Order: sequence, then structure tokens, then C-alpha cells
Amino acid sequence: MDPTRRALLVASLAAALAASGRGGARAASAAPETGPGHDMSAFPPEWTRADRIAMVAYPGFTALDLVGPHHMFTSLMGAQVQIVAATRAPVVSDLGLAITPDATFDEAPRDLTVLFVPGSGEGMFRALADPETMRFVADRGARADWVTSVCTGSVILAAAGLLDGRRATTHWGAEAALEPLGAVLEPARVVRDGNRITGAGVTAGLDFGLTMLEILRDRDYAMGVQLLAQYDPAPPFAAGSLDTAPPQIAKMMGAMFEGFPKRAVAAGQAARRAL
Amino acid sequence: MDPTRRALLVASLAAALAASGRGGARAASAAPETGPGHDMSAFPPEWTRADRIAMVAYPGFTALDLVGPHHMFTSLMGAQVQIVAATRAPVVSDLGLAITPDATFDEAPRDLTVLFVPGSGEGMFRALADPETMRFVADRGARADWVTSVCTGSVILAAAGLLDGRRATTHWGAEAALEPLGAVLEPARVVRDGNRITGAGVTAGLDFGLTMLEILRDRDYAMGVQLLAQYDPAPPFAAGSLDTAPPQIAKMMGAMFEGFPKRAVAAGQAARRAL
Repeated sequence: MDPTRRALLVASLAAALAASGRGGARAASAAPETGPGHDMSAFPPEWTRADRIAMVAYPGFTALDLVGPHHMFTSLMGAQVQIVAATRAPVVSDLGLAITPDATFDEAPRDLTVLFVPGSGEGMFRALADPETMRFVADRGARADWVTSVCTGSVILAAAGLLDGRRATTHWGAEAALEPLGAVLEPARVVRDGNRITGAGVTAGLDFGLTMLEILRDRDYAMGVQLLAQYDPAPPFAAGSLDTAPPQIAKMMGAMFEGFPKRAVAAGQAARRAL
Repeated sequence: MDPTRRALLVASLAAALAASGRGGARAASAAPETGPGHDMSAFPPEWTRADRIAMVAYPGFTALDLVGPHHMFTSLMGAQVQIVAATRAPVVSDLGLAITPDATFDEAPRDLTVLFVPGSGEGMFRALADPETMRFVADRGARADWVTSVCTGSVILAAAGLLDGRRATTHWGAEAALEPLGAVLEPARVVRDGNRITGAGVTAGLDFGLTMLEILRDRDYAMGVQLLAQYDPAPPFAAGSLDTAPPQIAKMMGAMFEGFPKRAVAAGQAARRAL
């Protein structure tokens, strides 16, 4: 986060908290990041934590799956948020967006607060077929405090053996892939089962991200970031789910995913055997 | 877009359109992009257009402002969507996301279908203070079919003289800056005044993007992309606007923007004088 912006956020949150009387007693021991001229004395120490968050990027990933949660994670005071990939070369998304990773898989911390995996359509198969990506997900996921995904990122988690017996969600077009890979499908917007948190397709990353802020900090913190992001959605059409979309739209888009879950299961099972 | 994904989208849209009987009569002259093995014969020619869309990136821009609309624009069949900046070097967002531009300002087409400008907090001031960025926006905006923005991108448009007398929206924290810079404030999620289309803060880019798809193609097209993106939002909290957020959250976040509109007006007026 822009240091000025983060300092402003801290100052504002601190001021409001002090005003509410909730943060005062803990203020003396606070030592947050500060910007010049901001009085952090009312800042509760538990709002700054050295979270280590790794967000996996792979060729053909869906950028919006990652950038929504990235917006939320990077508002966490004290957190280190890194986009990680096989190399530091820019990773090109399925829609042509080139994002430069912050670290390689080798450079990423061994013990993570959050492991995050975005989804994709065809790009997901490239991730499943890449042993380096799968080994990273399986290794870090085995120890991370929180193992998370958006969209078909949950297929990758499942293939890495991280969702066995866990309730999880995914993009509507990939739902049939989860159970054959060991997870228990719960087709909701955001699903939490223990320390596994999964979001549905693409734009669910916003709802997922805010949910994570509440988990990693608290509800006031998450609401503050929601207001800053002006997340008061007003879709111009009611077509965001198979249930709400007009039948002809649901039918034509559903046809795009014919065969997708079956391919995903085969690729996921192969990836798992290779681990 | 991943060619496979785009081909699948085209095929699905075409099949549904043929089934509905709407596209059949126009099918003979269609010559869209095709993937191997997909029959495009039912594809209506007006769904593929050579739109030229330039999305401006500048140091410190808010990535989510841009990536939401980018997801939508890049689903337009036949469109060329370019992220443009002063140079081809990666541009780092306010939250540390490094995105590689597709073209420089000099390389961008002279005549655009859509000019898009994202917003930012402190980064916006860097854009306003950069003559090269401002000249690009003013020049391309003078001729573009559609002049558009999300968040405080509308402050940049206004400073470039592109919103004089036009109704426009912006991030809630910047609303007071628009009228002194010549626009007519309409604090809605997405505002259309002629060929000026502006979105509110950050996440309004999703609603803005879908609105643009309907404008550039039609409602069925936009709904299909909405379903693919599973844009069926379910914010975990009701805190996305000053009206819906709990009063203490609105107050603390509102305090972050004290002085922001005044600074934006001064910087915007200076930018305009320098053009």
C-alpha cells in the first residue's frame, strides 16, 4: 500500500477506535507502522500483525480472481503480501494482463499465514500440469494458517490434497470437479471449513477478501476497507448466477463448460499422483 | 483473452443466438475470430467489432479500478484492449501491484473507441502533475467515441477538460472536487451523460464494465459475461457506502478524505492551466 494511504488508514482507524473507547486500554503497547505526523497512540496492537501472505500466479491465471483479494490483503497493516510464481518474469493472465511477481516459489516464506490460489479456465490445466506449481501449493498449504482460493483455484487446492473431506466452493462451471478430487461441494459464495476458505467464481474474490479481513483482524477493520473500496455493488443485470440469469443466457454459458469438470478431474488426479 | 476461452465464448453465444432465431438472418456475412472446430455460422456480425480501447496506467493507480473493467473489455470479440502508459516499464499500483503496459502513449491509436482512466488516492496527484499523462488524456479524450473512468479517474478527466457541464460520478471521498473542475456531480454507481461514462469508487468498475458491454454490444452479451464472472455479489457486511456503513465506520473513513477534494481541485486546476 502507498505509505501515505496506509498511514491515513491507520490514523483514521485509530482515531475512530479511540473515540469508541474500545482501543484505549491497549494503546500503550502499540507500535504500528506510522506515517509522519500521525498519532498512533490509540492504535490497538492486534491490528498490526506480520502476516505472510503468498498469492500464487501461473500462466493463464484469471487476474481478477487475484486482484480483488490482493486489494483487500494489502490493506492489512503489518502484512507482507507477495505474488509468487515460478520466476520473477511477468506472468500473463488469460485475458492478457501481465503482472510481475514479488517473489519466486523458492523465495517465498516457508511458513505462511495465508496461501492463496486464483483460478482460471484453460490456465488451470497449465497449473495442474506444472509440478513446480503443484509442489509449492502442496508444501506451503500443508503448513499455512489459512489455505484459500477463488474460482477454480479450489480445484488446484483439491488436486494438491488440501481439501480432502473439506467443504469448498468453486466457479459454477467447475462444481462437478470438486467431489471426485476429495472435497465436499458447497456451492456458496464463500465457504469456510476450518482453515480452508474458498470463494466462488472470479468476482467472489471481493466477498472472499472481505471475509478474510474479518478473520485476520475484525469486522470493523473489514467494514472500513469495504467502505474505502466503495463495495456497494449494483450489477446492471441479474445474470450473475445460473439461478438468476435468463434461461437462454444460463444455457449458452453452461454449454461452455461441458466436459470441463471431467477434464479437471482427470488433470487433478494426474497432478496428485505426480506429487 | 485466452484464444480457447474466447473461441468457446463465441461458440456458445453463437449457438444460443441461433437457437433464439435472432442471429440467423445475419449469419452469412459473419467473419469473427474463430477457434479450431467451432462453427461460427450463426454468429451475428455486429458482435465482433474492431474496438480500440486504451486503459491509462500511471504510477500509484489503483489496480482494482482498472482490472475489473479490463476483465470486461477483454471479453469483447474483435476488440484491441491496451493498457497504455508513459513507457513500457511495469507500472506499480498504490498497493504494490506491478502491471506491464501493452503500449506507450505514443504507440496508442490516435482514434479510440474507448478511453478509460482509473483512479487513485495519492497516485491521482501524480497523474495530475504529469504533463505527458494529462496531454494523452486530453488528446485522446477529445476524439474518443467513449470517454470513461472509475473512481477518481473522473477528477483526471475533469482536469483534462473532458467533463465540462457533464454529469459524472467519482469515489465518495472525492465528490466535492468534481463541480469546481467543471463537471456536474451525480453521486450514482455508474453515470452516463452522452458519451461520458463514469463509475464510482474502485469496485464500481465491475458495474461500469458490464454497463460498457451493453453499450458496446448488447444486453445478452453483457449478461453472458456477467454469468462467466459469476458476478452475483454477496458482501459479507453492509458497509460499502456512507449511507449503509455503521456511523462510526463512515466517520472514521470520512476523516481520511478531509482536505482531499480541496487538494484535488487545486491540482486539477493547475493541470488544466498547464495543458
